[in-house]
Amino acid sequence: MAIVGLGLMGASLGYDLRGFCARVVGVARRRETVAAAVAAGCVDEATLDGAAAVAEADLVVLATPVRTILRQIAAWGPLLRPEAVLLDLGSTKTAICRAMAELPPHVQAIGGHPMCGKETAGLAAAEPGLYRDCLFILCPTARTTPAAQALAEALIAHIGARLLVLEPEQHDLLVAAISHLPYLAACGLVAQTAEVAALDPRVWEVAAGGFRDTTRVAASDVTMLLDILLTNREAVLAALARYRRTLDELANLLAEGDELGLRHRLEAIAETRRAWNRSREERRPT
Amino acid sequence: MAIVGLGLMGASLGYDLRGFCARVVGVARRRETVAAAVAAGCVDEATLDGAAAVAEADLVVLATPVRTILRQIAAWGPLLRPEAVLLDLGSTKTAICRAMAELPPHVQAIGGHPMCGKETAGLAAAEPGLYRDCLFILCPTARTTPAAQALAEALIAHIGARLLVLEPEQHDLLVAAISHLPYLAACGLVAQTAEVAALDPRVWEVAAGGFRDTTRVAASDVTMLLDILLTNREAVLAALARYRRTLDELANLLAEGDELGLRHRLEAIAETRRAWNRSREERRPT
Repeated sequence: MAIVGLGLMGASLGYDLRGFCARVVGVARRRETVAAAVAAGCVDEATLDGAAAVAEADLVVLATPVRTILRQIAAWGPLLRPEAVLLDLGSTKTAICRAMAELPPHVQAIGGHPMCGKETAGLAAAEPGLYRDCLFILCPTARTTPAAQALAEALIAHIGARLLVLEPEQHDLLVAAISHLPYLAACGLVAQTAEVAALDPRVWEVAAGGFRDTTRVAASDVTMLLDILLTNREAVLAALARYRRTLDELANLLAEGDELGLRHRLEAIAETRRAWNRSREERRPT
Repeated sequence: MAIVGLGLMGASLGYDLRGFCARVVGVARRRETVAAAVAAGCVDEATLDGAAAVAEADLVVLATPVRTILRQIAAWGPLLRPEAVLLDLGSTKTAICRAMAELPPHVQAIGGHPMCGKETAGLAAAEPGLYRDCLFILCPTARTTPAAQALAEALIAHIGARLLVLEPEQHDLLVAAISHLPYLAACGLVAQTAEVAALDPRVWEVAAGGFRDTTRVAASDVTMLLDILLTNREAVLAALARYRRTLDELANLLAEGDELGLRHRLEAIAETRRAWNRSREERRPT
């Protein structure tokens, strides 16, 4: 098998699949990454020659940013052997699954999105077991044969992830609500604090745990996030509109001093958040 | 000394001040809390009779929700002995310091706000050392004598907190930006996700680490937050307006597909967030 992209996701997958797959070949863009991946032991071998690696593999996993994946599907998809399967790990799925559907009919391809990660990216942060107990979403396409889906599901079972099958458009709508919008919301919180800081820099000293948690994702890798936002623009803009509506409702209740109305709304929100947390705890294996 | 309110903040302060103060008397509203506080050892003794306890104390600390503090200042402030000092731990300061300024001239009073806490509230969550290395803001009032401020500063030094002196209005403006607005922002994220969930409940299953962090504070105690929002309404509404403006700017860049502009903005925000985190790490003692 070939893993294209040896960052956090690709290299962690390599650790988990060595032994499970006969031979794990990593594809990187930089010579140093090739050497570091082999030294770290996340792949059996590594190369800069993506075209050659994917043409030889039975399973190709694209673990690069979304718009790089789109280019790689177009360039390398047609090179795949007829029995080979193409899987990607991109964070948005509509554009990718559409590109997969346009591949030559001999290519088997399926969209994937593992919902895990860490604050630190890159090969150095990769580790065996990263995918354990995380949700792994699969989006079948017009090029997904039963054999391709079965192979992807076997891989997901092997790395200990939970499977959820979604339509690409529905995937993008849901992740806009719980991932892409929260990123922009966190960025907005940092930006408005920076405006306050221009007048009184002590605001940074006063910021504590609540600010830390709500804005943590604002420090995410911008290149990766730009790919996500630009390939999921409509769903993200719809989520932003929905968000501003809910903020306006809360602002109006506060402006009117409607204490009962505000309490009612905030209690329902707090209970919703607590219920979600409980359901997460229950899903977590003991 | 008397600590009024034996929740997380009051009880934790009790642990730290036993021994430092000759006698720590806790005041609670419920008989079970009185018994539990004595059993836990966070106070030397506890009582339901707040008026009697504050009339005997050399130092009175009000560790109740903001609007309860306002009532207690009016009811019990005038009962204080002339040499006694009144300090509060409320999360907003303009209304409280205004109420302190209206106390009889013999009363010495100073506003306080320790910027620490935990996800779990209440006496059971209290612990010695909670205040260590946290920021403790003092807001002097018209009733703050040099002796009162010196006593408050000695207390802050003893519990290992860092001191920052602010005007009450400036305090409220800064915490609106980094605490009260992030709470409402988190609530809005939960509310818009609940709207999506009404159509597709799988959104709760897809929500992962980013959603968890950005919305954590939405599960906070609503009674405490309502007091905060309603006693800091103007600063919170101004922060909300500022926030919606920054969100609109990000939405416009995305809607226009202005990749360079969006990258420029998001990189600056990410760097601002990372710089804040570095300054926090540097402040943390090794």
